[in-house]
Amino acid sequence: MYQLFIGNKNYSTWSMRPWILLKQAGIPFQEHLIQFDGLEPNSQFKIEISKLNPTGKVPILVDDDLIIWDSLAICEYIAEQSPEKNLLPQDKKLRARARCISAEMHSSFQTLRNLCPMNVEADLAHIGQQLWAEHAQLRADVARIDQIWSERPNEDGFLCGEFSLADAFYAPVAMRFECFKLPISPSSQAYLQKILSLPSVQQWMTEAKQEQMFVAFDEPYRTHREEFLKDPKYNQN
Amino acid sequence: MYQLFIGNKNYSTWSMRPWILLKQAGIPFQEHLIQFDGLEPNSQFKIEISKLNPTGKVPILVDDDLIIWDSLAICEYIAEQSPEKNLLPQDKKLRARARCISAEMHSSFQTLRNLCPMNVEADLAHIGQQLWAEHAQLRADVARIDQIWSERPNEDGFLCGEFSLADAFYAPVAMRFECFKLPISPSSQAYLQKILSLPSVQQWMTEAKQEQMFVAFDEPYRTHREEFLKDPKYNQN
Repeated sequence: MYQLFIGNKNYSTWSMRPWILLKQAGIPFQEHLIQFDGLEPNSQFKIEISKLNPTGKVPILVDDDLIIWDSLAICEYIAEQSPEKNLLPQDKKLRARARCISAEMHSSFQTLRNLCPMNVEADLAHIGQQLWAEHAQLRADVARIDQIWSERPNEDGFLCGEFSLADAFYAPVAMRFECFKLPISPSSQAYLQKILSLPSVQQWMTEAKQEQMFVAFDEPYRTHREEFLKDPKYNQN
Repeated sequence: MYQLFIGNKNYSTWSMRPWILLKQAGIPFQEHLIQFDGLEPNSQFKIEISKLNPTGKVPILVDDDLIIWDSLAICEYIAEQSPEKNLLPQDKKLRARARCISAEMHSSFQTLRNLCPMNVEADLAHIGQQLWAEHAQLRADVARIDQIWSERPNEDGFLCGEFSLADAFYAPVAMRFECFKLPISPSSQAYLQKILSLPSVQQWMTEAKQEQMFVAFDEPYRTHREEFLKDPKYNQN
């Protein structure tokens, strides 16, 4: 069975990609969550991860003696090993499009990443409003993603028709948009709601909220966990 | 026949990837070089590229009515369309490795990219020495690439055995290392020389030197073309 090593569900966008792909496709895997305690070489997180992967990053997929340490390569591998799940579209053009938009996500949108880190439990709409007004490159990143989301083949479908690897790549973006309430078109808003309602995404969000950990280096805006909680029932303190 | 749109060969690392892949595999294509005159929306470069691709970036592959605008997706498409060329390794583990290291190149090494832009015609060894002393993250980026290069299956072979998509992804890195003379291990040095001696890479370098254009936004260190030329015969002024 696949072994998937991930970071905290509240924060780790790159971990979310293969987790959502496997969960949504109904492919069994064993999850190993390595909590972020720091990014220094002597942090427990780095010590644990470096046993498997010299880059010291999550996610990592282990399949018997094969270790895959890049989220796009992991998703390609899963799609290849389970062709019956159609995690890459069968149609040649849609498949090229799925790879284009996933690889574009992999290499780009640095401003969105830096300014709007994923934080599933928090509602940072007021911060999002301020960032939106101040950062033209953030508006450009969101506009490009809005365009990608709006160009899906069917208004009520996924990015490349049926659910695919590309949707797993954009699910963490949906989390960022939801946390910071960034303005998007009605068509993209419909897609965002479709992603938020997926059982796999619902499960990820619930488990993220249950973590109740505050990781300071992933929190540029809050000073403690209880600030700006989406759902106060997860504040046990 | 494929139509490949690229930027200046002296500067455009992302253009070099699919160009080297196609050329090295002997797959015919028609090249369209759109010279960098600026990155503003009203530059000729952006106007030309935006006709094909909303991201306004090169490279772009056009195959009949299919437009592919991401270099990793382009290389996957080429590999998929020409399975007899084995541009992805046939062995499952080597294929996963090729995808891992290519996707890692696609998403990472931001410090190397920022500090050491490709400049085929220039010899910036003195700048490289200074950057190396001053920037720990540059040394970390190079150390990780050195590790990837040193872990190839055969000492005298390519990154994943035979020539593959992964070597096309690291060919522009070889250009950066050669320009800035960054220190690497003897094993990686042997691989660097192997890449530099490929006919496709030789052709790219010759054509890069023949361009004789100075693109200021790609030149953080020179003030004019004639400074630090590797080969003064290309200075016609």
